[in-house]
Amino acid sequence: MKLQQHSFNTATSGRNTYNITQKIEQFISESGIKTGLCHVFIHHTSASLMITENADPDVRYDLETIFSRLAPDADPEYRHILEGNDDMSAHIRSILTQTELTLPVSNYHSGLGVWQGVFLWEHRTGRFQRKITVTVTGK
Amino acid sequence: MKLQQHSFNTATSGRNTYNITQKIEQFISESGIKTGLCHVFIHHTSASLMITENADPDVRYDLETIFSRLAPDADPEYRHILEGNDDMSAHIRSILTQTELTLPVSNYHSGLGVWQGVFLWEHRTGRFQRKITVTVTGK
Amino acid sequence: MKLQQHSFNTATSGRNTYNITQKIEQFISESGIKTGLCHVFIHHTSASLMITENADPDVRYDLETIFSRLAPDADPEYRHILEGNDDMSAHIRSILTQTELTLPVSNYHSGLGVWQGVFLWEHRTGRFQRKITVTVTGK
Repeated sequence: MKLQQHSFNTATSGRNTYNITQKIEQFISESGIKTGLCHVFIHHTSASLMITENADPDVRYDLETIFSRLAPDADPEYRHILEGNDDMSAHIRSILTQTELTLPVSNYHSGLGVWQGVFLWEHRTGRFQRKITVTVTGK
Repeated sequence: MKLQQHSFNTATSGRNTYNITQKIEQFISESGIKTGLCHVFIHHTSASLMITENADPDVRYDLETIFSRLAPDADPEYRHILEGNDDMSAHIRSILTQTELTLPVSNYHSGLGVWQGVFLWEHRTGRFQRKITVTVTGK
Repeated sequence: MKLQQHSFNTATSGRNTYNITQKIEQFISESGIKTGLCHVFIHHTSASLMITENADPDVRYDLETIFSRLAPDADPEYRHILEGNDDMSAHIRSILTQTELTLPVSNYHSGLGVWQGVFLWEHRTGRFQRKITVTVTGK
């Protein structure tokens, strides 16, 4: 059994999705692991991870529409307001999506389906450096 | 440390939940692994996985009721509409649940609690073949 | 590769969040594993896990506000009502958060970010014993 762990930063520039699939595939490839698991972790509570359709960008546009309803900015009931109108909503969006994901590794690649991509979802409206750690294990 | 990986397909026939707990237990049993982890991954973005109560089917009926509110079909604001009224809602439901899950393996079985079952939740209304990959690691 | 698995119980006294970060760090420390992964699993369907901000308790107060809207108690459409007004909502809240989480292990500690904590979220209003299993793997 082998184990490789790497961290990298992604610069975000506002509320949006950022495709990190190629970066993950690169770490799997470099690990030399044929069969196993690949764990992806984001070290933040106002940006998150998701696996969703990688083809039509309207899917991610519509996810934004719905999440703006589920976790509105500047809700009058929020108490946690000191960091801005987009901060508490960002924490809720993170809870409703994923802080960490595990993918199967099969035949030296991630086992993602044809239509699946891994996205960093930045929920804050400003610019941030987001740290991600990838751990690949297997044989 | 041992590692076993298997894939299987589940045929779905409409929006519903499908209990895959026994299939997962079977792979754990066949792996010969006593203590470790079992990872379950669905290779799709409009069907998902969840762990929920395995006893009263009304729990899953009520989950459907609430998810129909959180992620309505045919919402007038959706842009991603070419694949049908149930497609964008299916992507949202997948994001709000899980594409992958890890269970502890303890004493040659999954460590699921007495009332926990693992379900494939098909969010589309048509018929599909859904591919799932199970990876068991441990000793 | 090493593997350690432990279970523990947390006593809950009503709907609230309970910080279990130190307990997880303790198991990682005791495992002697320098680099790897730490999996946390809750064996229940009406209490769940989440990683969220560990500083301002208002974040968790506001999460409660929003989840009370997304998954209301005693909704008139619920069929699963025999176990009380807070039971079906507890199952929904569990589905919308996490039953299991994996953290990276880096340099003998969890790789949690500075502002991240791991919380047990008890969704029932009564008192319960909640079982959690932690599995640490790595080298």
